[in-house]
Amino acid sequence: MDIEKVNSMDFGEFVDVFGNVIERCPLIAAAVWSQRPFSNLEDLEKHFFDFIDALPQSGREGILRCHPDLAGRELQQGTLSAESRREQSGAGLASLDADERLRLAELNAQYRARFGFPFVLAARRSHRAAVPRELARRLRCPPAQELRTALAEVKKIGHLRLADLLGTPPARL
Amino acid sequence: MDIEKVNSMDFGEFVDVFGNVIERCPLIAAAVWSQRPFSNLEDLEKHFFDFIDALPQSGREGILRCHPDLAGRELQQGTLSAESRREQSGAGLASLDADERLRLAELNAQYRARFGFPFVLAARRSHRAAVPRELARRLRCPPAQELRTALAEVKKIGHLRLADLLGTPPARL
Repeated sequence: MDIEKVNSMDFGEFVDVFGNVIERCPLIAAAVWSQRPFSNLEDLEKHFFDFIDALPQSGREGILRCHPDLAGRELQQGTLSAESRREQSGAGLASLDADERLRLAELNAQYRARFGFPFVLAARRSHRAAVPRELARRLRCPPAQELRTALAEVKKIGHLRLADLLGTPPARL
Repeated sequence: MDIEKVNSMDFGEFVDVFGNVIERCPLIAAAVWSQRPFSNLEDLEKHFFDFIDALPQSGREGILRCHPDLAGRELQQGTLSAESRREQSGAGLASLDADERLRLAELNAQYRARFGFPFVLAARRSHRAAVPRELARRLRCPPAQELRTALAEVKKIGHLRLADLLGTPPARL
């Protein structure tokens, strides 16, 4: 899909295609449509990220709270978004054994209780063995720093999803 | 459900329950959770509305773009949210005849083309015969005024949904 195609979309089509670039936040794609035309992928992406950065802190935390746990209930129940399912499966999180799932569930619960949002990680850039290590490490970070880290992961996920949709190779993040 | 129950919810439960107070914008409920505890329904509602009002214009338009058409494709295809389906059915929009559906589809398309967002109306406070009249009337309004009107309808819908969830009688709007 080239950028002319993107610029020709009405808002319904645009939200259908880009509505999950930011997980379960079609509002953001729907807002970004107001900024068309876009000159290229970087420009399109910049509008998504600028919208996130301009939100009050509660809104930035809200974006994180719309994300599912990694290897959590929604993966088990099959209610993940298509993008999340693909990303979590690709990182091997759909084939954990019972002990690994339990360990991750415990860490996820600790993280949610400490920060008030779920642990978000660009799973496609990670692997099942690395996820609990990274979760345990970030669990010890100060809250303000962890909010920044988590939003940087949201942007990595968004970058990878946009690159997929436009059929361009992702940048090295 | 009383306000103590609401204040005791973790963010996952809160977003499950209130995620569609603003149609397809769980981000807003997820952000509002940061503002707990809430003193009552009015206080809870005020946080939803304050979040909307603080968004840039693109974000307020984005909220509107997350709404389905009235008596549109999603009603036909059964892909409406549970709340929208109930509201549109309650207004008689699920039982239009072919001529009425076509008339409304034409008006919806004109409205979307003119304003860049779909026609939003608190359908529970309307009726199938009144909808095309109101749509035709608002189609002639200046864009800035129409954006304000449409967002006032979003808030009416949100008020009715919150009153339902808390089991309190809605205010006269």
